Amino acid sequence: MKIARFEHQGQLTFGILDEETREFVKLAGDPLYLGFETLEERVAVDDVQLLAPVIPRSKVVAFGRNYAEHAREFGNEVPDEPLMFLKPNTSVIGPGHPITLPVQSEQVEHEVELAVVIGSIARNVPREDAAQVIFGYTVSNDVTARDLQRRDGQWSRAKGFDSFCPVGPWIETEFTPTSGAVTCRVNGELRQSGDLNQLERSIGTLVEYASSVFTLLPGDLLLTGTPAGVGPLRAGDVVTCEIEGIGVLENPVVER
Amino acid sequence: MKIARFEHQGQLTFGILDEETREFVKLAGDPLYLGFETLEERVAVDDVQLLAPVIPRSKVVAFGRNYAEHAREFGNEVPDEPLMFLKPNTSVIGPGHPITLPVQSEQVEHEVELAVVIGSIARNVPREDAAQVIFGYTVSNDVTARDLQRRDGQWSRAKGFDSFCPVGPWIETEFTPTSGAVTCRVNGELRQSGDLNQLERSIGTLVEYASSVFTLLPGDLLLTGTPAGVGPLRAGDVVTCEIEGIGVLENPVVER
Repeated sequence: MKIARFEHQGQLTFGILDEETREFVKLAGDPLYLGFETLEERVAVDDVQLLAPVIPRSKVVAFGRNYAEHAREFGNEVPDEPLMFLKPNTSVIGPGHPITLPVQSEQVEHEVELAVVIGSIARNVPREDAAQVIFGYTVSNDVTARDLQRRDGQWSRAKGFDSFCPVGPWIETEFTPTSGAVTCRVNGELRQSGDLNQLERSIGTLVEYASSVFTLLPGDLLLTGTPAGVGPLRAGDVVTCEIEGIGVLENPVVER
Repeated sequence: MKIARFEHQGQLTFGILDEETREFVKLAGDPLYLGFETLEERVAVDDVQLLAPVIPRSKVVAFGRNYAEHAREFGNEVPDEPLMFLKPNTSVIGPGHPITLPVQSEQVEHEVELAVVIGSIARNVPREDAAQVIFGYTVSNDVTARDLQRRDGQWSRAKGFDSFCPVGPWIETEFTPTSGAVTCRVNGELRQSGDLNQLERSIGTLVEYASSVFTLLPGDLLLTGTPAGVGPLRAGDVVTCEIEGIGVLENPVVER
């Protein structure tokens, strides 16, 4: 199932995508907490404003250098242990919302990534049990001010600006994250192209690692690394991130 | 005013400390959102279980190397720009709750810090207006796995474990953060001793910097750096952090 969060006639609503009719079947509440109780109401996909399918109450956990070719494009190796960092929930935006270029940076770049949506309270989860704590998967863009990332040492600023974590278009609850094309286009031009079968560390390994450090809460996101081909974003660009089997996440880029 | 959050007879309640009678005057709700409406009820300080006075819905923003003598104890300088990083809200615990030593580290250390509690939505706040977005101040302990901090590069793991952000005992809303002793004792022995007048960057400067990167939300915490004297914690220790004019935050240390 594809679960979206959207605004329709001024109301925030969750819905299940009906791919045949291109409609959403409305849900009674947030399925992360209230399950999949459907209402009688339907609404056309084109008639709603999609929102980020989830706003984490706690953490956006992200992993670096999880595709060997991307690690190499900056002269790095895949690290011996997962390289983990945090993005704030205030960086999360939805489909169509603008990525705002901050005045502090001259070099803001796109990084398309598979995002894992955590579904239950998770602590010390062995990799083979990871599926039990995963609600679903969505597409994300780990937007990064590359110049500040190099300069600061810690990446919290470079990756933490408001709007630096587009997420969407919806959550696919039945996805198998072992293969699938991962692409990023800017103004239609292909920039990043990889496949989930190139992930150096599996989703299970990342869930095990993160949950051995902090308790994961429902709605927490795990961003699983980006394939090679990252590059600059400029005001006026439209950046399109896509993962085969999930969907397309598109955002315009604007000046602050 | 000193505002506490506590459990009393199974209920989560906020209260204002009456320092003369050592009682809390109960509040109708969370003062961050609902103001200071008092109830007729009072309860003795000794009869409640204090909780972290706030659980951030969004961010614990922390700053490194903001006391010159502490920067020097690791061979560092005070950086040209604030050194900013994030701790997850799942690391926050209250007074008396145990700091749990993770199996991944051999060297967990205390870092007493003044914590700023943000009171309103804050974006691009000039330093001279910082007081307008501050709800109050409390004591915090930026617990750090020093060995992992050195090894990982990014500090999210080393500073992000569950229980690595004790906060309390309450929020002082009328504090002036320009001077005041900042101390940390382990089993009664003085380990860290500094004064807020040694802060390299003022609270206003830190609020300006953080709010130029991300929107700060009510309940977000800013940890403002630690004075010299950081050192190891072992199972069985009791660590006591104190800031003159605010209060005492004490936590036991336990094995995982």
